[in-house]
Amino acid sequence: MDNMKFFVTGGAGFIGSNFCDHLLGMGHEVVCFDDLSTGREFFMQDALKDKHFRFIKGDIQKFEEINGALQESKPDWVIHLAANADVRGGLKQPRKDLDVNTIGTWNVLESAKNAGVKKILFSSTSAAYGAPAIFPTPENAPFPEQTSLYGASKAAGEGLVSAYSHGYGMTSIVFRFVSIVGARYTHGHVFDFVKKLKQDPSRLEILGDGELVKSYLHVQDLMRGLWLTIERVEDGLIKDAFSVFNIGNDSSIIIKKSAALIAKRMNVTPDFTYTGGKRGWIGDERVELDTTKLRSLGWQAEHPLEQGILDTVDYLLHHPDLLVRD
Amino acid sequence: MDNMKFFVTGGAGFIGSNFCDHLLGMGHEVVCFDDLSTGREFFMQDALKDKHFRFIKGDIQKFEEINGALQESKPDWVIHLAANADVRGGLKQPRKDLDVNTIGTWNVLESAKNAGVKKILFSSTSAAYGAPAIFPTPENAPFPEQTSLYGASKAAGEGLVSAYSHGYGMTSIVFRFVSIVGARYTHGHVFDFVKKLKQDPSRLEILGDGELVKSYLHVQDLMRGLWLTIERVEDGLIKDAFSVFNIGNDSSIIIKKSAALIAKRMNVTPDFTYTGGKRGWIGDERVELDTTKLRSLGWQAEHPLEQGILDTVDYLLHHPDLLVRD
Repeated sequence: MDNMKFFVTGGAGFIGSNFCDHLLGMGHEVVCFDDLSTGREFFMQDALKDKHFRFIKGDIQKFEEINGALQESKPDWVIHLAANADVRGGLKQPRKDLDVNTIGTWNVLESAKNAGVKKILFSSTSAAYGAPAIFPTPENAPFPEQTSLYGASKAAGEGLVSAYSHGYGMTSIVFRFVSIVGARYTHGHVFDFVKKLKQDPSRLEILGDGELVKSYLHVQDLMRGLWLTIERVEDGLIKDAFSVFNIGNDSSIIIKKSAALIAKRMNVTPDFTYTGGKRGWIGDERVELDTTKLRSLGWQAEHPLEQGILDTVDYLLHHPDLLVRD
Repeated sequence: MDNMKFFVTGGAGFIGSNFCDHLLGMGHEVVCFDDLSTGREFFMQDALKDKHFRFIKGDIQKFEEINGALQESKPDWVIHLAANADVRGGLKQPRKDLDVNTIGTWNVLESAKNAGVKKILFSSTSAAYGAPAIFPTPENAPFPEQTSLYGASKAAGEGLVSAYSHGYGMTSIVFRFVSIVGARYTHGHVFDFVKKLKQDPSRLEILGDGELVKSYLHVQDLMRGLWLTIERVEDGLIKDAFSVFNIGNDSSIIIKKSAALIAKRMNVTPDFTYTGGKRGWIGDERVELDTTKLRSLGWQAEHPLEQGILDTVDYLLHHPDLLVRD
């Protein structure tokens, strides 16, 4: 395959910076577009040394910024990872998910169309299934009932990606992620637990009853999954306007077990307390995705779920500055 | 049931004005909120004579306008019908569906929350199913793949309604409509065909091959369906945060047959020509909805599908001024 040019929104964030490094490692050209609201220059320190890498500071919420950057870059692919990922905060800032994840995605799509880009990869989420009735949940699960503004905003983003692809002759790939863990991870359960235990190793309050089933995937397994679908499009094996893939670990873990694993790795023995109720917050749902479709292309998770959690704990303990930021 | 206060967005439009009249006929208080972009004062002529009716000119795209109107009105129910319904025009104005149907719906929801409104009814569409794989399509059909910006924007609106309802303790009802016909009908296939045949009775060009299956429901049948669910909420028989109902005729008709029916009613014998292809435009999909769920509450369509089309032709022929506007 010839080298290509990738435009990565959110390229300074956890997943984005890992994907930029992954692409650069294969010799591709990468334009990273990020407003550094949650992304970090620190995550780009290797990439910035590569002559095939360029960073553009900009905000997908500002049409002129993303449109200008795409006009200038004219990439082969847009990898749209920029998002508001603060799932729990939705009800406190009810416009934010709409602004970033839905309207922001429209801005990216319209700009991509204007720049003649024909290939799009978009990161959606298991939360797009709302409160699913089937586990593990397949891509063609029943029409979702949204329980969080985050899930609603990402499902809306998917719909826009699909309508643009059908309407303007693009090829798009949408991934629905479980929680991703590994190096540069900066939010979610593991982050919250490590942070709390660093502050007070004697106790850990868990939102909900601790029994909710979750799945975690190592970011390196995610990288290979994303790349595999790009290869299939380039090889002409994926030709549909719109394809959606679940990606996650085939094993799962309940929250209280993951908390116990984290405490053990940190050599602390907290008293666990529970706020009670099935969910930690409204929209906090059981996550187990059926990944048969992606595995049929030849992908599988290589890192056991527990290893992903432990690697993340180690990474956070070695980068205590990351824990300062909420 | 005591009289209640209803706030109807899009209340001067085809469906909205019929619903305002329906509510006023039962003695309820009605506030109609409409920007008159496609709604018409003419449709409110009876309502305006009723002391229980009030019209507020305003645009759901302007948060201050809808928020102010809801603060002032403090209704029991918000009936959110205002929408951009120009399905075919989406690709020419790709921001419009997002602005009106998604962001506009967010504005209505946030304003309703601010005004303490706890009950919402929202008009969605069969287009929210994208290109469904199952016919007749049930409410829990597989996760949709959107093929039109209109469908994407309405599905996104549904997601917002659902997330708001779960998040802020509202009760919401979403209806997915087939094409609605009857008095005050002002857009869609029947409108287009009548308009074209008035201009030139010798020929009728049909977009696509004419074989696409569509369903039409008489607006009076729709009124009874909407009202039935409101009654069920008021009776405490519908308690879920979010409920979705298909509404449509159980029979269906292919486009070329409906065109022939219209021509016959107009006493014209045009040559029919077809632009070819399964769809009239990208996102033009087969429509047959499974209405088992709504029928289980006691509803059924009383007007045969053909009667709905013929009544609409008659109505348009008696109101030729409506055909002038596109």
